[in-house]
Amino acid sequence: MPPTQQQFASDNYAGICPDAMRAMELANRGSAQAYGDDQWTVRAANAFRTTFETECELFFVFNGTAANSLALAALCQSYESIIASDIAHVETDECGAPEFFSNGAKILVARGEGGKLTPDAIRAFALGRTDIHFPRPRAVTITQPTETGQLYSLEEIGDIARTCRELGLRLHMDGARFANAIESLGCSPADMTWRAGVDVLSFGGTKNGMAIGEAVLFFDPALANGFDYRCKQAGQLASKMRFLSAPWAVMFETGAWRTNAAHANACARHFADQVAGLPGVDILFPVQANAVFLKLPPDVTAALHERGWIFYSFIGDSARFMFAWDSDWARIDTLVQDLRDITGARPSPEQS
Amino acid sequence: MPPTQQQFASDNYAGICPDAMRAMELANRGSAQAYGDDQWTVRAANAFRTTFETECELFFVFNGTAANSLALAALCQSYESIIASDIAHVETDECGAPEFFSNGAKILVARGEGGKLTPDAIRAFALGRTDIHFPRPRAVTITQPTETGQLYSLEEIGDIARTCRELGLRLHMDGARFANAIESLGCSPADMTWRAGVDVLSFGGTKNGMAIGEAVLFFDPALANGFDYRCKQAGQLASKMRFLSAPWAVMFETGAWRTNAAHANACARHFADQVAGLPGVDILFPVQANAVFLKLPPDVTAALHERGWIFYSFIGDSARFMFAWDSDWARIDTLVQDLRDITGARPSPEQS
Amino acid sequence: MPPTQQQFASDNYAGICPDAMRAMELANRGSAQAYGDDQWTVRAANAFRTTFETECELFFVFNGTAANSLALAALCQSYESIIASDIAHVETDECGAPEFFSNGAKILVARGEGGKLTPDAIRAFALGRTDIHFPRPRAVTITQPTETGQLYSLEEIGDIARTCRELGLRLHMDGARFANAIESLGCSPADMTWRAGVDVLSFGGTKNGMAIGEAVLFFDPALANGFDYRCKQAGQLASKMRFLSAPWAVMFETGAWRTNAAHANACARHFADQVAGLPGVDILFPVQANAVFLKLPPDVTAALHERGWIFYSFIGDSARFMFAWDSDWARIDTLVQDLRDITGARPSPEQS
Amino acid sequence: MPPTQQQFASDNYAGICPDAMRAMELANRGSAQAYGDDQWTVRAANAFRTTFETECELFFVFNGTAANSLALAALCQSYESIIASDIAHVETDECGAPEFFSNGAKILVARGEGGKLTPDAIRAFALGRTDIHFPRPRAVTITQPTETGQLYSLEEIGDIARTCRELGLRLHMDGARFANAIESLGCSPADMTWRAGVDVLSFGGTKNGMAIGEAVLFFDPALANGFDYRCKQAGQLASKMRFLSAPWAVMFETGAWRTNAAHANACARHFADQVAGLPGVDILFPVQANAVFLKLPPDVTAALHERGWIFYSFIGDSARFMFAWDSDWARIDTLVQDLRDITGARPSPEQS
Repeated sequence: MPPTQQQFASDNYAGICPDAMRAMELANRGSAQAYGDDQWTVRAANAFRTTFETECELFFVFNGTAANSLALAALCQSYESIIASDIAHVETDECGAPEFFSNGAKILVARGEGGKLTPDAIRAFALGRTDIHFPRPRAVTITQPTETGQLYSLEEIGDIARTCRELGLRLHMDGARFANAIESLGCSPADMTWRAGVDVLSFGGTKNGMAIGEAVLFFDPALANGFDYRCKQAGQLASKMRFLSAPWAVMFETGAWRTNAAHANACARHFADQVAGLPGVDILFPVQANAVFLKLPPDVTAALHERGWIFYSFIGDSARFMFAWDSDWARIDTLVQDLRDITGARPSPEQS
Repeated sequence: MPPTQQQFASDNYAGICPDAMRAMELANRGSAQAYGDDQWTVRAANAFRTTFETECELFFVFNGTAANSLALAALCQSYESIIASDIAHVETDECGAPEFFSNGAKILVARGEGGKLTPDAIRAFALGRTDIHFPRPRAVTITQPTETGQLYSLEEIGDIARTCRELGLRLHMDGARFANAIESLGCSPADMTWRAGVDVLSFGGTKNGMAIGEAVLFFDPALANGFDYRCKQAGQLASKMRFLSAPWAVMFETGAWRTNAAHANACARHFADQVAGLPGVDILFPVQANAVFLKLPPDVTAALHERGWIFYSFIGDSARFMFAWDSDWARIDTLVQDLRDITGARPSPEQS
Repeated sequence: MPPTQQQFASDNYAGICPDAMRAMELANRGSAQAYGDDQWTVRAANAFRTTFETECELFFVFNGTAANSLALAALCQSYESIIASDIAHVETDECGAPEFFSNGAKILVARGEGGKLTPDAIRAFALGRTDIHFPRPRAVTITQPTETGQLYSLEEIGDIARTCRELGLRLHMDGARFANAIESLGCSPADMTWRAGVDVLSFGGTKNGMAIGEAVLFFDPALANGFDYRCKQAGQLASKMRFLSAPWAVMFETGAWRTNAAHANACARHFADQVAGLPGVDILFPVQANAVFLKLPPDVTAALHERGWIFYSFIGDSARFMFAWDSDWARIDTLVQDLRDITGARPSPEQS
Repeated sequence: MPPTQQQFASDNYAGICPDAMRAMELANRGSAQAYGDDQWTVRAANAFRTTFETECELFFVFNGTAANSLALAALCQSYESIIASDIAHVETDECGAPEFFSNGAKILVARGEGGKLTPDAIRAFALGRTDIHFPRPRAVTITQPTETGQLYSLEEIGDIARTCRELGLRLHMDGARFANAIESLGCSPADMTWRAGVDVLSFGGTKNGMAIGEAVLFFDPALANGFDYRCKQAGQLASKMRFLSAPWAVMFETGAWRTNAAHANACARHFADQVAGLPGVDILFPVQANAVFLKLPPDVTAALHERGWIFYSFIGDSARFMFAWDSDWARIDTLVQDLRDITGARPSPEQS
């Protein structure tokens, strides 16, 4: 099958990055004990602990839906609730997985700017309904970067975490694109998580360049009690675990997890810069990670689709473009040029 | 990391077979749509339908626990029950996953020879408790080959299926080692499944030589209604699906799924032949697939462990040896020789 | 214990009406078979079928949360969703019970006037998200009368039901105060339910004057398959069933179910008439059943509480007053007089 | 409806005892706050605490299935397991409710004498499977008296409790017929529960003479955290709670809970004494509470049924006779006489 022309509909359209593929090949030498009792899993765990500068408990699962839902199920009982943004992936794109894995916990959604929760919104829920007829809030989940590519600053995360502690809530971070946030903020993983007060992190590997796999990190070991059984029961324990863990080990060791993210972020930045100011084209949210959301006139959207471009329009009728570790500069420029052509922009100065 | 010396503790100690690895590399060229809207997934689906000679509905999930549990959850309500053998993997090794995914369905276990259910055992459950205070039977699950490596003949499967139909029960087959059964019986996949009356099949890819992945096949499309949502909600929908589907496509096309299984079966046969008759060593079950269970004196078990051999003893204090696509003849012979040495067997004729 | 002075905080502050109490006493003569195999349960079932003019399947459960949640669980799978009003009891006051009993089905809430769903709102959800990443809509629930005491007309119910059929959705009616709606609309139970297209009804007995108990009626018997097991497993099968069923039998036979509701409705009407026009007092919703919601100045609210009046303020800061089968005219007038005194209203003409 | 002739098929064939009925009538005076914020519920709670000589946390639920299942769900996670006797009600007669309420916890059944667990059986499970592929034991449940009417002595309960503590397990007591055990052992409720090491108790009211209702008592308050929400979500929070709680209050105050049980026990003793030695009739288990199990020849069973006697034969083909607070001596004697007639016994000495 010939390769398909690159699209920017999602960062999960990208394949496996070279370091992850090499890791799988290296891990494929000989026998290895199953279910994580292998050297690659030890090596990956060590890499995580070094990277996060703490003895966290960690678990490898297959995808982000499982990572988020199992983490949240570990934080709340069925009769409790989870505070999330109205565009949080757990609310809008996991087909009720948090409710399923927790056996009925309710997601309380707060409207916010670009998917960002605030201490006030959290407080409003926690102090709002306190009677027995409504699921009591027990966990808060924030997505970093958010589904529209925005970032919480370290201060904002710290404020949210303090609010959570005050109110007896646990804090989960959905880091499906964790690496992109780290690269963009230029901070350490420890600062963005446990030092700021995050209890549990879903760390995305798939969008970072792996074939399959996410990690769940518990910074409070007490919360991890039984999580290994929980994963097993939920069909999330890989027998040939080394093929999930080796890519993490290698990508941490080579730094690919960061260079991949840095590339994706740079592509988004570049794309946004190129299309800024095109007639009728508006950039909807600050471009802080690897996503660019454009407000396009309907005929522009149609013309792009006609030229073969694939993209989603699920948030506010916008066109979402996501960049990945493998995004090709030339292909981005083709997209920019198509947008220029369609919108009738005058040639840009450097092109004239 | 240097490769570890091969063990025969489980067929999931084996790595990725060459065809599966090549498939992942081929699938890694360029962009692909996510969640199964890609050419590799179409190609794999076609390969399945050709191989099974029917337009079955099929779904790719991450592991066998998920495949079995989701299939069973699709067959019964929470207040219903599932008839299984007392050594069925769903009962003994999935940490309550069928109960979890079905939200409470009960597994009714029948004692049987080597994990084989009989029409009589099924009938006894179905006609036994019929009052509202006990979960009504709704599904039957058989493992082919069984957990001790035994096979149901086509006639036996047909008899069970007819019993199920009579009693209003649905029939699921746990085919974690489906390919080994096919190779051993020498029959067609269609004959061993839908033509015999099986409704749903879990077809194992991991033990057959893949990194990760199982398929769930519904031969009655009505039963598959909503199963795509069920998988998504349960955290079993891979975003980069091509890396789950491509190995199936290539392994069906090259026939590796059968040659891998044939090799594993032959290794088991060979090992059993070599150790038959060693002093104090009993072969516990007929060797019909890729498993050999030995009854060993405790000192022999200890001595084997001392020489570095890893194996499980979870069924009746036996030592289980499982062979895989990559089992090495020389390494098997080393194990045989160690057993000979330990048991003090006289040199075999060909060695003398 | 001396009787407490009557309050109008909720219609579940009322006790057991005379006919229901007498029924329990009558049912208490001698032995009876358990779990519904008794004559009172047969008699109650017949009374239901006569009243609804159809051979519906019916089940007695303990409370409204169970009635609604089990009914909805019977209509949808865990990966499906339920369309409800934003003030529906299932959404706001059942502590996640629908999510729990269905193992994760999501409630999609539509904002509406006084808790009333519209065909357009239903259509918007059903046609909105149709991808696998969001729970597919499968059921609609309407409350009749709504939580603010409004009624759907027969035409409105019919329109909603037709919309449901078109879209492949099932229609549930939460009739916690079903009798109040029947009395107010003056129509037959059949016209307000199955003839209009309702599939399943939760019929409230507790607020109608019983100690404990609701009924779930399936007008499409196919939907009731297994519901007896579902109730048993969910802890909703009463062993001494006669004490749940006898009150239904007697209250249908004597007509108390209607006279109780008629009294409560008349009390609400009377109260609303008396307080209309009091300074600073606004009646928030049309008074069509047994509820009156008042918008009161904060000092009036405080003064009422000071005089010992209990009432809830959970919808829009309003004060809710609910009337029951036992509401006492004199006590209502005391409340009215207190409101007059507090608001400084001039004496009403008939009082001067 | 004329009263039906008394049967001894189950103690839930009995009606409401006079004190319970009077309590409901007393509680029916005037308004009361809903959901347990009423004086009767306070009074009942006090009575419990006095009776058990401890500040336990307690909750009223509708039936025994709910009491047991919610208690067990509070003790274990979905991926954990519950050790029970093979004839425990939770295993054989609750239609998978423990699995449902816990979202998948597995019941591990131990064969025992007359439904009695032993420390050895518990230890065998707790130390047996300790790998991640099997649900880890977390709770033990014992039925006092057992389903065949046997009693654990205080020493036996203490031994089991100590075993549980050693192994990190929680101990639940299913006291559906708790009062019968107390009367038979002649000990205090405190001695039979928390002083012996029981963590949670389901205390049965229905079989003790109430219309509806059981209590769940937590002797370790930490375990009760959130149980109010759990009950609400599970459809087990009565709105008119006073009708569940008042019977407890009155029956504790008058001592009816004990006299009812004493009567039932005496009837069982009397019946057993009368039928002992009848030709072909064997008493199967020691008669220590209110149950008598007879081994009868098939023709005797048939002849009893022919004479209109109802009884169950679900344990070992035996005929179970259960006596209740209202069992009528004359009616028991009629049954005895019928058995004498059928078995052709010579007239008993006192009758001659």
